Amino acid sequence: MNDAAHGIGLAVSTVIFALRPHPVTGLSALWIPLVRRTRNPFEGSWALPGGWVSEQESLADAAARNLLETTSVEPSYLEQLYCFGEVNRSPDRRVVSIVYWALVRPEQAVRSVDGENVRWFLADELPELAFDHNLIVDYALWRLRTKVEYSRIAHALLGPTFTLTELREVHEAVLQRPLDPANFRRQVEKDLVPTDAVVTGGRHRPPRLYRYDESISLVDNGPLTHSGAATHNGLVPSKARSFA
Amino acid sequence: MNDAAHGIGLAVSTVIFALRPHPVTGLSALWIPLVRRTRNPFEGSWALPGGWVSEQESLADAAARNLLETTSVEPSYLEQLYCFGEVNRSPDRRVVSIVYWALVRPEQAVRSVDGENVRWFLADELPELAFDHNLIVDYALWRLRTKVEYSRIAHALLGPTFTLTELREVHEAVLQRPLDPANFRRQVEKDLVPTDAVVTGGRHRPPRLYRYDESISLVDNGPLTHSGAATHNGLVPSKARSFA
Repeated sequence: MNDAAHGIGLAVSTVIFALRPHPVTGLSALWIPLVRRTRNPFEGSWALPGGWVSEQESLADAAARNLLETTSVEPSYLEQLYCFGEVNRSPDRRVVSIVYWALVRPEQAVRSVDGENVRWFLADELPELAFDHNLIVDYALWRLRTKVEYSRIAHALLGPTFTLTELREVHEAVLQRPLDPANFRRQVEKDLVPTDAVVTGGRHRPPRLYRYDESISLVDNGPLTHSGAATHNGLVPSKARSFA
Repeated sequence: MNDAAHGIGLAVSTVIFALRPHPVTGLSALWIPLVRRTRNPFEGSWALPGGWVSEQESLADAAARNLLETTSVEPSYLEQLYCFGEVNRSPDRRVVSIVYWALVRPEQAVRSVDGENVRWFLADELPELAFDHNLIVDYALWRLRTKVEYSRIAHALLGPTFTLTELREVHEAVLQRPLDPANFRRQVEKDLVPTDAVVTGGRHRPPRLYRYDESISLVDNGPLTHSGAATHNGLVPSKARSFA
């Protein structure tokens, strides 16, 4: 056994995205939950939820546990983002962080409320975070926006059924630009299955509800097909923590 | 300080690709150098080159050092592939491996010769490797093939100038299918700069040499622009090793 790695801490952190209304415009926007650090380094700063990797837990399980502990919710999508390991990213001790990113559905996101040391922030209006966590969030946002363009990932931010307008608004919230409704419909239609249901509420022509064709996967991860799917049952939310 | 991570080893491994002629067809094919393990677990098996992460070395530097130690060459492209951390991937002790993938140019690849414990293999005809290294190579091949379709990555497997036929043969070797020469030319032309040189050798219409427009980057990694560029100077090749 080589002891060279023994001084290096190994942590998992998670960038969690959910859609909630923007407080000013009322439009759907991306939000991220952060935890306030209660000790040094960076005591008092906001940071991504995270923790040390424990010996008998896979990396994805550790990420899902972080998520559950911070927000009390289970993700509809969880994927490894990147491993951050610069020598001086934590001031006290070298910490290598394997970072995951997760998407949470609205019906799950409402279960997570702000507390003293957990708060949801608009993803594009974050304060200065601890460690290199601003860079990490920037990269997660870039990955999400890139992936929305070529995969069905937006699905994971929606409930099981939705209107075409709701689906377009998710894409607009992620990409931060308006999309032409007719072009959008043509692009997504092949992946959608119309349901028999419509939105109720007395409108003259109530919009139809759709669901995704679940025989097609959200994202193609090639030989790592199973790596995005974390098992995260039986975990009980506890104290929120953050790590480098 | 939390000691939970102290039993977990932290390693870096690298999947290195270069183009060399296929021994039967003579066409360009992808090759990978592997190292033979000289101790347990998996003593005698072939494995990816790798080593423990040392305290004062970034992850990309450790990957570049692996590469130099194994093949005596410097990569033209180096990118983090994925972090593999399943609990039981190494039989003796938990090892989390941050894996990089690298592309090497032909003029560099000829500097690397097979030795007793280092040998180049056809990427699609590997033996059963140690640990989960077959899965890792499969994923690296999938990433390379996906990336060749939408980025200029093939460049990193070629010399500074090349003919259109040579460039198409690189794409064909990576994608393992023939490409229509006229369509291919239309797709890549916008990224190419014709040089004044032609291939010499007395042919009636000698083919023109091109180079890539270097103002465009090989791959768009968003906010992690610098993460693909390893600094790997001043390292001296030594004993090849492999880790989980």
